[in-house]
Amino acid sequence: MDQPSPIAFYFDPISPYGYLASTQIEELAARYGRQVDWRPVLLSVTVLQVMGLKPVPATPLKGDYSRQDKNRMARLLGVPICELRHPEVSPIRALRAFLWLKERDAAEAARFARSICARLWARGEDISTAEAVLHEAALLGLDVAALRDGMESPQIKTRLREEVDRAVAAGVFGVPFFIVDGQPIWGVDRLWMLEHWLEHGSWDPAP
Amino acid sequence: MDQPSPIAFYFDPISPYGYLASTQIEELAARYGRQVDWRPVLLSVTVLQVMGLKPVPATPLKGDYSRQDKNRMARLLGVPICELRHPEVSPIRALRAFLWLKERDAAEAARFARSICARLWARGEDISTAEAVLHEAALLGLDVAALRDGMESPQIKTRLREEVDRAVAAGVFGVPFFIVDGQPIWGVDRLWMLEHWLEHGSWDPAP
Repeated sequence: MDQPSPIAFYFDPISPYGYLASTQIEELAARYGRQVDWRPVLLSVTVLQVMGLKPVPATPLKGDYSRQDKNRMARLLGVPICELRHPEVSPIRALRAFLWLKERDAAEAARFARSICARLWARGEDISTAEAVLHEAALLGLDVAALRDGMESPQIKTRLREEVDRAVAAGVFGVPFFIVDGQPIWGVDRLWMLEHWLEHGSWDPAP
Repeated sequence: MDQPSPIAFYFDPISPYGYLASTQIEELAARYGRQVDWRPVLLSVTVLQVMGLKPVPATPLKGDYSRQDKNRMARLLGVPICELRHPEVSPIRALRAFLWLKERDAAEAARFARSICARLWARGEDISTAEAVLHEAALLGLDVAALRDGMESPQIKTRLREEVDRAVAAGVFGVPFFIVDGQPIWGVDRLWMLEHWLEHGSWDPAP
C-alpha cells in the first residue's frame, strides 16, 4: 500500500498561531498515519509584500483581537503562551538555521522549529540574533559550530528565499498553513478541518 | 433563573462566510437556549476604512483561497452556495431594510436577513437595488409599501451609520462575528469555538 503523502506545515516563528499549531501538528498527523513536512515561510513577504497588507499586530481591531485570542486558544489547547516581549523580532536567522538543519536531518529540524517557536511564545526569549538561535540549538544538543557556519552561508540565504517563493507559488499567505493532498487550510482555528480531511478524505459532512 | 444573554451576530450580506453562518446560527443558539441578536455591519467600513486593508476578493492569494474555500465550507455545512454574479453588489439598501424591520419585529428582520444572504449566495440574485430588496421582502410576505418608504428614510440611513459605528466600537472587524457573554469570536470556521463557549462557558478544554 502506498504511504499517504505528508502534511506540508508552513510556519513562521513570529506568529503566535504558528507556535500554537506547532504544538499540535505532529500528534494530529501521527494519529492518522501521516508525516509532517515542516516548511518555512515569511509573513513579512506574504502579508506585506505579496498581499500588500499590514502586519496583524499593527492592524486596528484585528491586532487587539488576536492579542487576546491567542491566549484563549492556548488555554483551549492546553499549552503555555506569553506576550511578545521582543516586538522587533526577526525570524530570518532562525529559519535559515532550520533550513540548514532540514537539509541534513528533517526530524531534527522539526524539533528545532518547535523549540524556536516555544522559545519566543512559551518562554518569552528573543530568537532574532545568531546568539539566540545557537543557544536554542545548544539546548537541543545540536552541533552548534557547524550550524553557526551553515546558517550564515550565502547558499542558505538563497535557499530560504527560494523556499518562501515556493510557498507563495503554492498559495500560502498566512501561518499556520497546511497543505494536505492538495487541500490548502489556513489557521490554527481550522485544525478541526484538517482533521476532518485526514479522517474522511473529503468535504462531505461526517457520516 | 435569569435568561442567558443573546448571541450578537454581526452580518454583512456581501460576505459568503456571513451567509454560511446565517444558515447555522439560529439552530446552534437554540440548542443552548440562546436567542440571536442579528446586527448589521459593513465590511466596506471595517475592512477598508477602519483597518485600512483591501477587500478579501481583491487580496492576492487570500482572494483565490476564499473563493475555493467557501465552496468546501458550504459542502461541510450541507448548504448550497454559488459564485458571486454581481461583483459590484452593495449591501446598503438591504441592511437599511433589515434595520427598519428590526425596529418593528426582530424575528421578522432575522428571517429577512437570512433570506437576503441566501438570495445572493444560494440563488445568485442581486440584492443591491431597491427593487431587489423589495422583491425579497415580497417573497416573505412582508408589507412592501411600508418597507419601501421606511428603508429610504433619512432616519434609517442615520441608524445604519450608528449601528456600524457601534459594531466598530465593540471591536467587530470581520463577518461573521459573534459576541457572546463579552467574548468576541470571528469566522464561520470558529463555530466550534462558539459552541465550546455555549456548552462550557469557559476556555478550559472540554472535560
